[in-house]
Order: sequence, then C-alpha cells, then structure tokens
Amino acid sequence: MGKIRFYNAKILTMKDGSLIEGELWTDNDRISYIGPSCNNEESFEREIDCKGNTLMPGLKNAHTHSAMTFSRSLADDLSLNDWLFKAIFPREAKLTHEHIYWFTKLAYAEYLSGGITACFDMYPKRIESARAAVETGFRYVSCDDANDFGGMDLLEENYNKFNSYDPLVSYIYGFHAEYTTCLDNLKRVSELAHKYEAPVFAHISETKAEVEGCKERYGVTPAVLFDQLGIYDFGGGGFHCVWFTDEDMELFSKKGLWSVFNACSNLKLASGITPVYKFIEKDMNIAIGTDGAGSNNALSMFREMYLDTVLSNVLTDNAAAVDPFKILKAATTGGALCMGLNDCDVLESGKKADIIMIDMNRPSMQPENNIVRNIVYSGDNSIVKMTMIDGRILYEDGSFVSIDLDEVIRECNRLKKDLA
Amino acid sequence: MGKIRFYNAKILTMKDGSLIEGELWTDNDRISYIGPSCNNEESFEREIDCKGNTLMPGLKNAHTHSAMTFSRSLADDLSLNDWLFKAIFPREAKLTHEHIYWFTKLAYAEYLSGGITACFDMYPKRIESARAAVETGFRYVSCDDANDFGGMDLLEENYNKFNSYDPLVSYIYGFHAEYTTCLDNLKRVSELAHKYEAPVFAHISETKAEVEGCKERYGVTPAVLFDQLGIYDFGGGGFHCVWFTDEDMELFSKKGLWSVFNACSNLKLASGITPVYKFIEKDMNIAIGTDGAGSNNALSMFREMYLDTVLSNVLTDNAAAVDPFKILKAATTGGALCMGLNDCDVLESGKKADIIMIDMNRPSMQPENNIVRNIVYSGDNSIVKMTMIDGRILYEDGSFVSIDLDEVIRECNRLKKDLA
Repeated sequence: MGKIRFYNAKILTMKDGSLIEGELWTDNDRISYIGPSCNNEESFEREIDCKGNTLMPGLKNAHTHSAMTFSRSLADDLSLNDWLFKAIFPREAKLTHEHIYWFTKLAYAEYLSGGITACFDMYPKRIESARAAVETGFRYVSCDDANDFGGMDLLEENYNKFNSYDPLVSYIYGFHAEYTTCLDNLKRVSELAHKYEAPVFAHISETKAEVEGCKERYGVTPAVLFDQLGIYDFGGGGFHCVWFTDEDMELFSKKGLWSVFNACSNLKLASGITPVYKFIEKDMNIAIGTDGAGSNNALSMFREMYLDTVLSNVLTDNAAAVDPFKILKAATTGGALCMGLNDCDVLESGKKADIIMIDMNRPSMQPENNIVRNIVYSGDNSIVKMTMIDGRILYEDGSFVSIDLDEVIRECNRLKKDLA
Repeated sequence: MGKIRFYNAKILTMKDGSLIEGELWTDNDRISYIGPSCNNEESFEREIDCKGNTLMPGLKNAHTHSAMTFSRSLADDLSLNDWLFKAIFPREAKLTHEHIYWFTKLAYAEYLSGGITACFDMYPKRIESARAAVETGFRYVSCDDANDFGGMDLLEENYNKFNSYDPLVSYIYGFHAEYTTCLDNLKRVSELAHKYEAPVFAHISETKAEVEGCKERYGVTPAVLFDQLGIYDFGGGGFHCVWFTDEDMELFSKKGLWSVFNACSNLKLASGITPVYKFIEKDMNIAIGTDGAGSNNALSMFREMYLDTVLSNVLTDNAAAVDPFKILKAATTGGALCMGLNDCDVLESGKKADIIMIDMNRPSMQPENNIVRNIVYSGDNSIVKMTMIDGRILYEDGSFVSIDLDEVIRECNRLKKDLA
C-alpha cells in the first residue's frame, strides 16, 4: 500500500464519459489526487508510467455465487429447474468449508484477472468466502441466500457478524427466491429489514415459470409480493429481472430499487432476455452481475456488458437501443451503489482506490475512436493490465500478488473429485 | 521454423472430442508427430514445456473484413442499411492502399492475440492484405467482394494472381451480395465459377429486408437465385444466413454449401439471430466468422462460439440446444474446409502446423471438468498463450514476433484522422 503515483494515464472517472489525461495518486486505501501532471515533491512508494493506458473504477460483479466455480462445465445442458434440482442442489449438499474456501478463491482470481474489484456474493458458508477475501485483499459483499432449506435462523447473526468482520467485508440481507421461501420466512426477512432499516435482495422473475408459480400462490408477481410484505421498505432489489411486468418496473422505479442483470446466465439456461433498454429508458437503478460459473460459465463482466447492449438492439430492431456509457456506468458505479459500496463508485479524490488499468496496447482496444465503446463492445479479460483494491495492486500483467494460483488450481482439481 | 517439440501437452486434435496427453512436434510448416511422450534422439530448435496446457488447431475466422478495424467504435448506433450507406461506404471511398495495409495489420495482430490462424477476408485493395499477411506470416484467404460499384472486371485476374502469390495467400470467388450486384454481374460470376470449376461465396440473407427485396426483384430468395444462376455448381456458400428459409437450408444441405455464422454482428446491427441449432440438426457444413470490427466490434472467435451456443438455447427454450464440441469444430475444422485450407483442419501428422496453445492456468479455464466446454463457454482472448502459423510461432505470452504493434497502433491512429 502506501502512496502510489500513476502518470501518463487516461482517466475515466465514470462521473461522466469524459477522459482526464494526467495523473492519479493513491494514499493507502484512498485516492488522493486526480488531475493534470504536476511537478511534485511528494515521495511515492511506486511510480507507474501508464503509457497512455486507461484507469477506471473496478468493475463490480453485482450478482454471483463465487464458489460455484466447482460446477463450471459440469452440467451445462439442463434447464434452470433441472439444473438446480438435479445437478446443483445434490452437489451443493456435499460442499464442505474446504470446498467453499478454495473454489471461492478460484473465483476471486478470475475476478481480479477480469478487472472486478468487488462481488455481491450469494452463497452459504460465507465465513470461508470472507476469510478468502481478507487473505486475498478482495472486496466481498455477502448477500444472504436464506430459504426454507436453511439459513433463516442465522440471518440476524450473519448481519451483525459480517458487517463487523473486516473493512473488506460487508453483508446485506437477502433470501434465495420466492419459490424456495415460504410466506412465514418472507415475513421474518421483512421483520429484520425493518428492525435494521436495511435493504433486501433476492432472485426475482428469473424464469417465466417462477412468475407464474408466484401468481398462482399469491395472485401477484414476486416483486409486488415482496413489496406488499414490506421487504423493500428500506431499499434493496432483485437479481435477473427477466420477466418483469410493467407494474414491477413501476414499483422498482418508484422505490429506487436495484435491478441486477445477468444476461449470460439467462441465455445459457434459456431463461429469457431481459429488456435492458426499458430499464434505461426509465432511468432506473441498474447493475450487472455474472451469476455463478455453473450457469454462465465465465465470470466476465465484459461479456455481460456487451450482451446488455447488443441484446437490446436485437430485441428492439434498433442498432442504437442502449448507450454503452450507461452500461459501463451500471457495471461500475451502479454495482457499487447497489451493494452499499458508496466510496467505490467513481474515481475521485477521497474515494476508495478500487482501480483497474485497461491495456490500450491490445489490438482490440485500437484505434482509439471511442474508448468507452472500445471497452463495452470489444473488451474481454485480456485488456485488464492491473487490478487494485483498497489501494493495493493485486493483479498485474497476468500475475497474482496475493493468490498462489498454482495452489488454488491444484486444490480445486483435488476437491472437484468429491463432487463428480 | 525448423523443428519444435511441444511436450507435457494436452492435445485436442479436433478429429473428435478426445484429448491426447503427450507431445506434438513440428518440422518446418508441418506437424511431424503427435503421440505419447517418448525418448527421442532428434534434435529440436526449441523444446517447449506445455505444463499441461492444451494444444489445438487455430481458430479460423471464416468471414471478416479485416481492414474495417478503422471503423471500430466509430459509428456504432445505426441499422445495417444506414450503417453501410451513411457511415461506412463514404469512409471506405477514402481508403487508400496505406489505410488498408495498416488497418489490416492491426486486425492480424488481433487475430493472433485471439488464437485465429487464418481469415476469410472480404475487402478490396487485397494486394495490401496479402502483403501484410506475408510480412506477418499470417494465413490470408481472400474472398472477392465484387459488386456493381466495382471489382467485376478484376475477378479473373484476382483469381489467378492471388492463388499464385504466396503459400500463405489464396483466393476464392465471391461478390458482395444480391442487393449490390445486378443480374448481369451475377451471371458473370457464374461464368467464372464454371470456367474454373470454383466455389463462390457472398453475403446472404443477412437481413429480412435483403430477403424481401430479392423476392420482389426475382421472386425467390438469394440462395435460390444464386443456385438457379449456377453460381453454386462448384460449391461455396454464404455469410450470415440469418433469414434462411427451409428451402434455402435444404438447398445448402443438399449441395454441401457452407453457412458461415456471424452472431455478434447480427445482434449489434439488429439484423436478427441465426437459428444455429437447425443447421446442426441437419448436420450441415458450418463455419464461424467475426465479420468486421465496425459491426462487431471485437474480432473474437471466442465470443462468436459462445453466442452460437447460448443464443440457440434461448431461441429453443432448451438449455441443451447445441453441442459445444460441434461449435468448436465449426470454428476450427469447418472454417478451414470452408475456405479451402484442407491441410489446416485438424492436428495430425502431415497437416500444416497452424496451432494454438490454450493457457489452462487462467482462472476461467479451471477446474478441468471439461476442457472443450471451458473453451467454448468461458474462453476469451486472455486464454491464448501461443499462436503458431505454418510452423512459426507468431504470438507468445502477449508478445508479437512478426508485428511491431507500437508502430501499427501509431500508424492506425495517424491514418484514422483521414476518416473522421
């Protein structure tokens, strides 16, 4: 940590689409200066010549199940329902603390290599994900996944425990989904939301069948049900939002709730295509996540951003359906605010130093007709030259600083045998 | 060149989905051995410890307009028709030989960094693309783009010139599309196809409007029209194939014609989604291309492969719509055969040494539940560790051997000012 100086940089603060040419300094976990190059007499621990590369806020993975890297390429060819109940749940029942620790660490390595500086992670045995995060220096926001099969009794304990665990760790109330959580349990979530004046998140309207099932049970959509129960009285939102009705959108819009998109997973599981353009037209609060590796299968925010633009194009028969800057904003600022990381949203003096460097010397980033569009339309993990979290460089030029990747790969391939 | 030994490799020959653990040797431009590790007394110019990484045939970009890198992120938000006639054609009119040379070289760099070892390129001033290919060591197959606005008189000359230019260069008859090529010119193409008993390719059924226009003009679809004119009597195929009718598919199937998919470009320009699963169900000849950087915007075969699987899922409401191995086969073997590179289709002793190494030490490639699925569902340019063409390593660990990338970037950014 200490003080680091980046110079000869293009800086995309994400406050707007403009680029600052100049310098960015960090002082421990914070940004201390952004502006033109200046003769300074400060001493730095390290001075990095960016050679015209672009600094921008880290990508925020606003919905994922990190430890599900265990299931990558394992059961690819099932619908959501069969995939969950036949392939995933039986294997998840076998997951030990050791599995969670190592497969989460593998996901953190993938996040760092893809410019992701924080994840909104929904997975049990979260003590292991927290431990791996602190060891790695990764920013981990746990979203609870309590449901009828477990976790309800731990909600309040988790809230207090993980919100005081470490500065890199925080916790937000959540539950798996309407179709896995009975009315009594939904009411318990609502009570806690009220007691702590806290936001709540859940999977919502991911499949058509989920919405139809909820309507049969309660006569309303999941969004309306949760709102009627007071679950959203202090904010929150939902993951997927593929099958939102106009009423759901109106509700989310009015309450400022967060809609988190997971385009890849929805395509892969044949769940549907979220009409992202509609959310943008209404200027709603939006963020983007990868979902887990079992259903994506990559944990790449670049692929998500790309799809959120072009799928809107083909849905609307309009090649200009979505402004790519708004998608990049959702993937950075939106994600940060969605998961309560109010100091990680943009690059600005005083904000947290969660910063990535985009390598403009990759062919796909050239020519520089428009850097934002280059990133959104042509970016992939190969353009990430550096990832810094909390002022600490954790990934640079393909190498990991705080993760022994050989060890992680060895352990994951040993442990996957338990889950075959 | 000379002799190179790769050992400790997993080898995906693409003859089938199996992996050989062992060695691959090259001798100048050819593969000389694939098999188990053996004590040998041969001397090699270089011996490469693959450390468990995967060798496979290079990806074949079976439809592109390489020099269109000039237009990346330049005019992103227009429909195909406006994009072509308002944004692209006026700028293309300004392209000099110098533009074509440098912007094509930028595309070749992107291909190498993305594991692409050959391109089926449709762009004028092809002497510059051929020159850049030979200088780079890249495998360039030119497809003619003649149309009513130019090129018809050069078809025969081009055929003879570029098929004897250099072993890395070849040429296949083509024309732009039905809507830019009048009946007389289509007949001229057919005559040449007959004279040389040669295959012919063109853009085909890319948009609904194109098919409707053709039906108004001729009462049949473009595929049927071309066939009626004898254009397909010696093989060939079409690019895009988004709006194929059952009759078109039957025709292509019966004649063994090649359908080349361009999912990213079709989404971006809101042209539609090709029902890839139907072509696979009928066991048709299929290949995959990126189209040009103006309409994609990346030149990534990984993104194309991924979309060809998951878009079929969402179209059919079936999470197992397409076998990912068949997509990887289309992107390698299919592409090679489509563009006449019969010695570049699979890894086998005696075949051309057009080989890439997949870095299994990237987090997205782990755990190794299924390597083919990892590549198709989770791959991007960051997993390409090495690209070899004709027995020569041209890209390795992020560095280019035969391209001065700094110079290419400098020249492209200078030249783009002419096209603003």
